[in-house]
Order: sequence, then C-alpha cells, then structure tokens
Amino acid sequence: MTYDDSNVFAKILRGELPCHKVYEDDETFAFLDIMPRADGHTLVIPKTSAMNIFDVDTETLCTTIKTVQRLAPVIRNAMKADGLLIQQFNEEAAGQTVFHVHFHIIPRWAEVALKPHAGDMGDSETLAANSEKIIAALEAA
Amino acid sequence: MTYDDSNVFAKILRGELPCHKVYEDDETFAFLDIMPRADGHTLVIPKTSAMNIFDVDTETLCTTIKTVQRLAPVIRNAMKADGLLIQQFNEEAAGQTVFHVHFHIIPRWAEVALKPHAGDMGDSETLAANSEKIIAALEAA
Repeated sequence: MTYDDSNVFAKILRGELPCHKVYEDDETFAFLDIMPRADGHTLVIPKTSAMNIFDVDTETLCTTIKTVQRLAPVIRNAMKADGLLIQQFNEEAAGQTVFHVHFHIIPRWAEVALKPHAGDMGDSETLAANSEKIIAALEAA
Repeated sequence: MTYDDSNVFAKILRGELPCHKVYEDDETFAFLDIMPRADGHTLVIPKTSAMNIFDVDTETLCTTIKTVQRLAPVIRNAMKADGLLIQQFNEEAAGQTVFHVHFHIIPRWAEVALKPHAGDMGDSETLAANSEKIIAALEAA
C-alpha cells in the first residue's frame, strides 16, 4: 500500500474540503475531528505525505509531536479538561480510517466517558464554538 | 504536582523493580506492560524525569517518539500484528496511572478486541515469551 493523496486529510490540506482549523505552521496543521470522541477532540497532521508511523520520516514525526505538545496545554485550558488522551492509529486493524499520519488529542474529564472512535458526526455549531475556544486560548498563550 | 521518583517506572529504571525489558539506549527504555491490553503491549519511556506531555522537554519527547518509531515495525513483525495502537495518557482523568511519561505500543489484530486499560496482570511466562520474540526481531532488524 502506498500513500493515496485522495484521502480526506490530503484534501483538507489542499483546501478541497472544509475543516475547523485550529493551528497551522509551515510543517503541520491541526483541526477538529469531525467525529469527536469528546469536545475539543483535535487532530494534528504533518503537511508531508505519509500514511502512518511505519512510513513517516523521523524528522516529520518529531515536528508533528512538537505541535501536539504545543497544543496540549492550550486545548486542556481552552476546554477546561482534566487530562488529555493522545492516540495514534496505525493500519485498519488498529482503528486507522484515514491514511495520512495523524495524532488525536482528546480532552478528558473525570466522570465523562469517551464516545466511540469514528462514531457520530459532531454538530457544526459545537465544532465551530470549540475551535474558536482553542484558537482564542492559543492566541492568549 | 511535581515528579515523584518513587513511581513504578522510576524504580524500574533504577533496577529496583524487575521488568520484561525489550530495548534500551542512552536516553530511552522499553519494556512490556505488566497489564497488557494485547500480547506484546510495550511501554517506551525516557530516562529523564517527567510526568507527562505537559512537563516533558521537547527534545526528550522527540527522542522518545523516535524509539517508539524504531520499535513499531519490530513489534508488529514479532507479534505478527495487523496494526499498532499508540497511546499516551496525560493526567488521571485521561487514564494515566504512572506519572513518568510513557507511550503505549499496542499490537492489534483484525477481530481481536483490546483488553481493558490497566486491567488484569499478564502471566509472567507469556510476558517473557513475548519479550523474547520482540528482542529476537530487534536483533534481526
């Protein structure tokens, strides 16, 4: 299997599909998961083409996890979360549904259960409100 | 909250507790999770003291994810896995039980459900056999 640039995240990077973007720099891009497992569930992706941990180059992986770390306290604070779950799925058997390497940043609160992975679509008003919260927290950081 | 060096992983690093080690270099250490969610469930930790993504220094985070990436195909091949789930928990509300930053590498197979996080202890013979498989695959890589 090789990288297929018709995947959803490649389309988002090219501006062919909309998203609730929260962050972008020269090498990485972050936006809300459209099927959130929790409010503020964010995806961080590199701009280069790689499917998952097995083919992404090491420097790109580092650059991507740096953006995850940069956003982590911002998302925690913006969402008033008690903690964050970071996940990265490799291959379909592990739950990977989009074959452009990505990290999930999922806010967690005590007593609030996670919703299923790749479950229901989030409503767009809530997604927009949550992306605005994260962007505001990033600007204030 | 500050880093408490009486945590279980700090004790493992100091050799005060046993573990099923699979890999070590100057900066990182990897061993099997004693409460595996799947056969071959491995933890990768830095040797420096940090609780989670909120306090670990960025270079250490990169070094640690590099070891995750180095071990990923080795563990996949050793365990004949169809995919890998990589997880990293931050704070108790997110499922963090040991406050020394760590990445989980969890083999996945189609049709095999994950066991619960922090569930039953693995039996030591199976853990030993799985660590030997991973070490052999690492030596052959």
